[in-house]
Amino acid sequence: MHILIIGAAGMVGRKLTAALLEAGAIGEEQIDRLTLADVMAPEPPLHRIPTVPVAADLSIPGIATQLVAEQPDLIFHLAAIVSGEAEANFDKGYAINLDGTRHLLEAIRRQGANAPYCPRLVFTSSIAVFGEPLPPAIPDDMAHTPLTSYGTQKAICELLLADYSRRGFVDGIGIRLPTIVVRPGKPNKAASGFFSGIIREPLNGMEAVLPVEDSVRHWFASPRAAIGFLLHAATLDTAPLGQRRTLTMPGLSATIAEEVAALERFGGSAATRLIRREPDETIARIVAGWPQNFDTRRALELGFLAETSFDDIVRAHIEDELDGNRLG
Amino acid sequence: MHILIIGAAGMVGRKLTAALLEAGAIGEEQIDRLTLADVMAPEPPLHRIPTVPVAADLSIPGIATQLVAEQPDLIFHLAAIVSGEAEANFDKGYAINLDGTRHLLEAIRRQGANAPYCPRLVFTSSIAVFGEPLPPAIPDDMAHTPLTSYGTQKAICELLLADYSRRGFVDGIGIRLPTIVVRPGKPNKAASGFFSGIIREPLNGMEAVLPVEDSVRHWFASPRAAIGFLLHAATLDTAPLGQRRTLTMPGLSATIAEEVAALERFGGSAATRLIRREPDETIARIVAGWPQNFDTRRALELGFLAETSFDDIVRAHIEDELDGNRLG
Repeated sequence: MHILIIGAAGMVGRKLTAALLEAGAIGEEQIDRLTLADVMAPEPPLHRIPTVPVAADLSIPGIATQLVAEQPDLIFHLAAIVSGEAEANFDKGYAINLDGTRHLLEAIRRQGANAPYCPRLVFTSSIAVFGEPLPPAIPDDMAHTPLTSYGTQKAICELLLADYSRRGFVDGIGIRLPTIVVRPGKPNKAASGFFSGIIREPLNGMEAVLPVEDSVRHWFASPRAAIGFLLHAATLDTAPLGQRRTLTMPGLSATIAEEVAALERFGGSAATRLIRREPDETIARIVAGWPQNFDTRRALELGFLAETSFDDIVRAHIEDELDGNRLG
Repeated sequence: MHILIIGAAGMVGRKLTAALLEAGAIGEEQIDRLTLADVMAPEPPLHRIPTVPVAADLSIPGIATQLVAEQPDLIFHLAAIVSGEAEANFDKGYAINLDGTRHLLEAIRRQGANAPYCPRLVFTSSIAVFGEPLPPAIPDDMAHTPLTSYGTQKAICELLLADYSRRGFVDGIGIRLPTIVVRPGKPNKAASGFFSGIIREPLNGMEAVLPVEDSVRHWFASPRAAIGFLLHAATLDTAPLGQRRTLTMPGLSATIAEEVAALERFGGSAATRLIRREPDETIARIVAGWPQNFDTRRALELGFLAETSFDDIVRAHIEDELDGNRLG
């Protein structure tokens, strides 16, 4: 089986690549080859399974056609301009997040016009397709009311994925990821960055800023859970999805207070003392517009699994990023 | 005020043109000029207000730029490939219904980059953005689950309209029209054609085929109500819409039995005897997937008005199309 990962250089893409290489198979099918595409060609991992890095900008017409020319059996489409950048650069956001995805779907469709070809396409969407006013637990049949261009682009891609799947051009499944914590690596400037920072930095003996109240509630899953969602989506029977091809993934609805309590259980007061409370009205206002909880019974019934406590999320971080050591 | 109508040659476009010319004003603003665009240039009506017919295919890049170059103050975008054709011709449907609308939005945005320009844009969407399984009365915050490429394209345009409006590039409002009855003119091959035919033909002394059961329920408004929706959308304060820029228009949820009873009140048994019941399983199956009723309280609160009985719909047809005569 030949797998194509688009957006392979990002955090999720790299973890997915590692998981696929370690498993060596998807379901019962051996993996023969991985094509790793991103705007800059990803670093190819050393492994007995051949990996082919490719520099590919999906927004450029013709690039998607090249990517699917060898008819990969399974495609993960993770590539996107993130929310803040899509808002700051209107043209770039639409070019990558909308046109890029449409080029990919069209390239797959045109491959299928010449020879039988209908690959599984796993697409990462976002809870940014939803915007307030929202019910306390957002169901899958809630209207898409994005409050950003990024959310708009993701919502449009969900519609395209469903239509191309209904027409038999692709076997698509979209998954809306929760906010991923604890993101490994250095702090970034995303408005949501502090959710990871207040675990990651203190466990490394470093200070982290908390810009919102302890009562703030949000929707979380670990990077490990995210990889689990992608792998499950790759093999799942898509027939029960009907025409509703995108699902909100399960996650943990938790408050900052619960997050800090979990940190304390793993890192003690030495860790929690490193959280510096520095209220930031701008960030507080942005976060206040984000969804806090979802009704994900469809995804749970289909076998998607997420953490059910913040302890599980912190434990996954310590095991996967800190070699099991609580303090670096 | 300069008004641009795109899709001016269709049934709704022609009636809208006539209504605008007759009123001579929109709200308190005099109409100075009408630009009437369609794939084939519409026949210009004779009237003291100058009308400029234009042949324009929105799917061709650059055409939208020409249409908005003179910065019309108000734009009605009614142009679309209908459902059956968009399903039969995948590329054409996306080219006109999606790319055409996007070209228009982009052309407006780029006009606004040079000079202050943010016109009101009234866009006709469709209840085809919804597909089963559906609740008994579909609210505006129901997820878009189109079961056709046409419905997908309309749902995508609703998302684009909201994002371009949020960004301040256009002052957009989308209205989802009910099935329009009684459509004037000759019978057409649309699956929904019989809803009009069983009123129109018998009132003309001609036979009409009814392919579904009398118990079938559907969602209706007259052409007169549709023009009322468009004119109201053109002047409405859009601030209360927030980010939710498209509304399902009010309509009448009624059964075929109620429709036939209304026909009998106006045309007697001489008219109802001309309905020939000829069940068609294909049409019955298509119609069974269509929405039957909507919760349109948002639109009603904003002052949109529709008929509340089938008698009103038949009366509008007799007054507007038959010069008030019940039998032709």
